Amino acid sequence: MLKIRAHKITETTAGFCDIIDITAQVREHLAHETIQHGLTTLFVSGSTAALTTIEHEPGLTQDLKELVEKLVPSDRRYHHDDRWGDDNGFSHLRASLFGPSLTIPIESGELCLGTWQQIVLLDFDNRPRTREITVQFMGESE
Amino acid sequence: MLKIRAHKITETTAGFCDIIDITAQVREHLAHETIQHGLTTLFVSGSTAALTTIEHEPGLTQDLKELVEKLVPSDRRYHHDDRWGDDNGFSHLRASLFGPSLTIPIESGELCLGTWQQIVLLDFDNRPRTREITVQFMGESE
Amino acid sequence: MLKIRAHKITETTAGFCDIIDITAQVREHLAHETIQHGLTTLFVSGSTAALTTIEHEPGLTQDLKELVEKLVPSDRRYHHDDRWGDDNGFSHLRASLFGPSLTIPIESGELCLGTWQQIVLLDFDNRPRTREITVQFMGESE
Repeated sequence: MLKIRAHKITETTAGFCDIIDITAQVREHLAHETIQHGLTTLFVSGSTAALTTIEHEPGLTQDLKELVEKLVPSDRRYHHDDRWGDDNGFSHLRASLFGPSLTIPIESGELCLGTWQQIVLLDFDNRPRTREITVQFMGESE
Repeated sequence: MLKIRAHKITETTAGFCDIIDITAQVREHLAHETIQHGLTTLFVSGSTAALTTIEHEPGLTQDLKELVEKLVPSDRRYHHDDRWGDDNGFSHLRASLFGPSLTIPIESGELCLGTWQQIVLLDFDNRPRTREITVQFMGESE
Repeated sequence: MLKIRAHKITETTAGFCDIIDITAQVREHLAHETIQHGLTTLFVSGSTAALTTIEHEPGLTQDLKELVEKLVPSDRRYHHDDRWGDDNGFSHLRASLFGPSLTIPIESGELCLGTWQQIVLLDFDNRPRTREITVQFMGESE
């Protein structure tokens, strides 16, 4: 029987490329379902946040912060800032580059993640935010 | 009952990092279905275009054009150009970096997008193109 | 009738941004199913590899290697390296930037890929690896 279930994960972030591991929460939601085989879709609403996977350890999260600062600097003025005055043009650009969605197969009731591969929310905004991530499971329950 | 429906969105673009908002068209296709809960999968065929989300306003689309120009410059010669002579090596690289697919959950018949978060086609080719985006809905109709 | 089928593709890579075309293997798995309409989800387990699409020809794969080297250089020391000593901080960052998942609709039993658009595994690690990619089909068989 096919089952579709959606959950919300709410995170309070510090902004400025805050990198938050949400793997345990996704696994906890999955544990409450009886889906053995199927698909997990993760999506973050909003245009200044993104989702990806990373080995979530303090060295690497610092490296990722420095990388996005190099690729999309925060210390210059963007056209978006001239128009809207909220000074977060860099936040929007980083979010578009990383993207808001992530899909992970479920096999034998488990996410197909590697051992050192965590699901992370990237909050690129220039202020603290409360974020909502949709976690949707679609699959066969047995 | 599970329903799977696919639609095509056709867009004529100017190329050169043309950024086209297709949100209204995706919503219009969804409105004609009776899917309450499920998944929207978007995919652009072709190796010089991509999909992402952005706040689609003229300042930010100009910023994104300038960002991709900085990350993957168009004014240098790529190995692809030496081999194929179509001078769009930069277009291919930008497309691979942003990626061709996007997945968005549907809840209560609506896409889980933020208010300022639009779905955009990025056409990176070095000439005008006609693009086809597949929009697939998979979910429960009630 | 809805069908969910998962397969594993195993690839031995050279690491260092090895770019391996897995399209034929994905198509072969799909050919053995009877799914006419639905979704293909691809996911690579591990935090130093990624998936995307590209026109897989030697000029362009060389261009992509040079691009990732420019965006995320391998010849500097990252905080991750100081902490873990495996010297592959750059590999992790590249993987997070490109992302581990890809979704491709199936129509009339075929992947919605462009003619010059191949599915590729990017192995960013700093040594040869054996990689496992999950290929999941979800759709209606007729």
